Amino acid sequence: MTDSQPAPVPHMDPESFRRHGHEVVDWVADYLATVESRPVTSTVAPGDVAGLVPPCAPEKGESFDTIMADVDRVVLPGITHWQSPNWFAYFPSNASGPSILADLVSSGLGVQGMLWATSPACTELETRMLDWMAHLLGIGDRFLSTGAGGGVIQDTASSSAICTMLAARDRAAPGTQAGLQGVEGILTAYTSSQAHSSIEKGAGILGIGRDNLRIIDVDEHFAMCPRALRSAIESDLAAGRKPFYVSATVGTTASGAMDPLEDLLAICREFDLWLHVDGAMFGTAACCEEFRWIQRGCEQADSYTVNPHKWMLVNFDCNCLWVADRQALISSLSILPEYLRNQATATGDVIDYRDWQIPLGRRFRALKLWFVLRHYGAEGIRQMVREHVAMTQELVEWINAHEAFEVVAPSPLTLVCFSHVDGDDRTQAILEQANATGTVALSHARLNDRYVIRLNVGQWRTRPDHVRAAWDLLTSLSS
Amino acid sequence: MTDSQPAPVPHMDPESFRRHGHEVVDWVADYLATVESRPVTSTVAPGDVAGLVPPCAPEKGESFDTIMADVDRVVLPGITHWQSPNWFAYFPSNASGPSILADLVSSGLGVQGMLWATSPACTELETRMLDWMAHLLGIGDRFLSTGAGGGVIQDTASSSAICTMLAARDRAAPGTQAGLQGVEGILTAYTSSQAHSSIEKGAGILGIGRDNLRIIDVDEHFAMCPRALRSAIESDLAAGRKPFYVSATVGTTASGAMDPLEDLLAICREFDLWLHVDGAMFGTAACCEEFRWIQRGCEQADSYTVNPHKWMLVNFDCNCLWVADRQALISSLSILPEYLRNQATATGDVIDYRDWQIPLGRRFRALKLWFVLRHYGAEGIRQMVREHVAMTQELVEWINAHEAFEVVAPSPLTLVCFSHVDGDDRTQAILEQANATGTVALSHARLNDRYVIRLNVGQWRTRPDHVRAAWDLLTSLSS
Repeated sequence: MTDSQPAPVPHMDPESFRRHGHEVVDWVADYLATVESRPVTSTVAPGDVAGLVPPCAPEKGESFDTIMADVDRVVLPGITHWQSPNWFAYFPSNASGPSILADLVSSGLGVQGMLWATSPACTELETRMLDWMAHLLGIGDRFLSTGAGGGVIQDTASSSAICTMLAARDRAAPGTQAGLQGVEGILTAYTSSQAHSSIEKGAGILGIGRDNLRIIDVDEHFAMCPRALRSAIESDLAAGRKPFYVSATVGTTASGAMDPLEDLLAICREFDLWLHVDGAMFGTAACCEEFRWIQRGCEQADSYTVNPHKWMLVNFDCNCLWVADRQALISSLSILPEYLRNQATATGDVIDYRDWQIPLGRRFRALKLWFVLRHYGAEGIRQMVREHVAMTQELVEWINAHEAFEVVAPSPLTLVCFSHVDGDDRTQAILEQANATGTVALSHARLNDRYVIRLNVGQWRTRPDHVRAAWDLLTSLSS
Repeated sequence: MTDSQPAPVPHMDPESFRRHGHEVVDWVADYLATVESRPVTSTVAPGDVAGLVPPCAPEKGESFDTIMADVDRVVLPGITHWQSPNWFAYFPSNASGPSILADLVSSGLGVQGMLWATSPACTELETRMLDWMAHLLGIGDRFLSTGAGGGVIQDTASSSAICTMLAARDRAAPGTQAGLQGVEGILTAYTSSQAHSSIEKGAGILGIGRDNLRIIDVDEHFAMCPRALRSAIESDLAAGRKPFYVSATVGTTASGAMDPLEDLLAICREFDLWLHVDGAMFGTAACCEEFRWIQRGCEQADSYTVNPHKWMLVNFDCNCLWVADRQALISSLSILPEYLRNQATATGDVIDYRDWQIPLGRRFRALKLWFVLRHYGAEGIRQMVREHVAMTQELVEWINAHEAFEVVAPSPLTLVCFSHVDGDDRTQAILEQANATGTVALSHARLNDRYVIRLNVGQWRTRPDHVRAAWDLLTSLSS
């Protein structure tokens, strides 16, 4: 070797990987063991974290120890701890050990699941897991892979909303893949004022247009009014528009409201509209028979989605989407360049999931569902759901019994929205003071233009004591 | 506790996580240590893997050992080993140890990076990493976060293509977010016949329409013809159409061709079109000065994308997208429901990456870039690129010197496309026989309607001996 020979590339061989891997597992275990003791919300100011990172990558490689030390020094102060048992904000990111470890197996295998042929296990396990989930949630046989439907893992419920709106668009106006500007009749979609923002975002992306998404009024429980939906469709039809898609929600973001699927379904059938059901957050509850009422009627919908990466112990990303007619989805998303042609695809005997999603590449995410469903078993998942609901219902009783707070929306599951009786300023002040203590993370919403505290119980580390402590804090701030 | 009390939920506490985590790290280390000895391509038949998985989730939880044993029994036979040093097919999935372990840290932290406020470190480290990458690849100052531009991690180059086509669509026809059907003048996009399939897929999704994507001819090196582009734009303008977007490629999928960015740029400037540059696979080469010619001109483009999850040692998913005008992207993708409002967002001092992508939720992926760039250092990455190019160039010499094969496209980097002189059937037979041995994985393409073997060197475990063995196999099959 001469002096001018470059240094060898510092690849991490399997034995170094083993050693450092054990260190990182220990780091994660220590983090999870101590997460409860950390202030839930990061208090760094904008620029604090970036200020600790040099402007360019280093020229020479650094030691793994140095990098891990910087995870503690640079990253951790800027982390808001979604895994804390005191996390009650937004939605849960309820990551379990089996899921984290399944994802490690997935990273280690490093396969691409774009085609069946590029790793058959990645595709076939996914199909099976979506069937498992369909049975677990009782969403009905039309969504099973054994019929004309089937399921797929997407990154998020936003992507599922877009993919279904796309399939519905192209079904309603078959020329649309050639160009939407040439289509006669303004394609018009419907959702409630309480629906997730991704529906409006999706309408903008797909060219439908945010102006052509009708925002339907809700009733006093924040659920979509079927009468208002019917009336909107009828007047749009009378105006020569082309109604094509309704997105209903099983558990709205703000308050967890349940749209009346059976009534909406009847309207969608009458006018031949695609009914998509977004159960991203609360769909998981349907694993328990006693909560399955939330989605009654979903088995006749055109599509259904739920996020195991929210409440069901799977780490991000893992959204499940089912369609009753997989051909509608595939015909909107399929494209087969020469370099992806292969014998298995040509036979038509296999699923190529690249045709079920927007991206081409895809990770082996079914492993996470497999590990979680097997480690916990159906009864373990149900039991966790029941415990979370029970803790929340106890909190609802405390709020109802307290003179300074009132619950402002139905709270049948794990989300409760409540306000201080003195009004918005007081409610907001209490929320901000509570979060500032670092002992809880809560978020907010507006319901009927009223500022409300949103408290959602959905972290598996959360025990009754944590809910009690959060409530004690809120009442102490209100007095 | 009474008899009717349900069993406790079998959560994996930190100490169990530590124990099983060590087991899984050992499993992955063993897998990576033995991946070379495995048949590269899985030989299972459709249904084989699914047949080993019961139709429903188990009622009761199972032991972690049982699950891991089934990874070996059920999953591994259905895996095609993208991490094998004998992987030369499609594109590399070049996952390094530091990247896999960074992803484990990300899974353990389990944060959501949708807003700056939901974990500031997730956002700020990402912004810094995209600046690091911009410097490393020399794509110019307009893409740095310190000016009007900036970068973001997307899942794939497909999503980057769609996001940029969307921003370009809305910039060219500002009313489009309200509804594309109301827009005058058919929006028309351009790419070459060698571009990635995601451009056509994206045009269909966005409502532009696959028919309104002009497929521009290529020259003898499979690079887009600027003259043909100009002529297509001019005739579309004459016909009252609205040209708005050109997607150029730095390293096409089939043959690795480089579109002439400077010439295309001049045309895009003249007609006010958005120029997107897709460097998904070969953009990584630009970390070396001597290969930076491939993307000359990209610093004046409107957007640029590269996939560290292909060649740059980062595991899937990690696509980098830069835009010169971040407001164009944000205005197409932004939506701010009440529950996401927060003080940091209101000040305008922070980036909320949910407005830079289609989904709302996002994982902490910047950690992977940070670990890889620091572990290897810029010079380690460059050295790996140079070694892969050198191995490939040696192979090109062998092919050129062999009477039975001929190289059919320029091969300046790590992809070589070649055919047997006896024609397509012979070439295809050799490819299939080679893959059937299980000692290599190769893929194919069609160039000028000729069937070619695609061999790409891009796995970090690949050494000169592996390339030599692949070549010896091919020559033995051709004699």
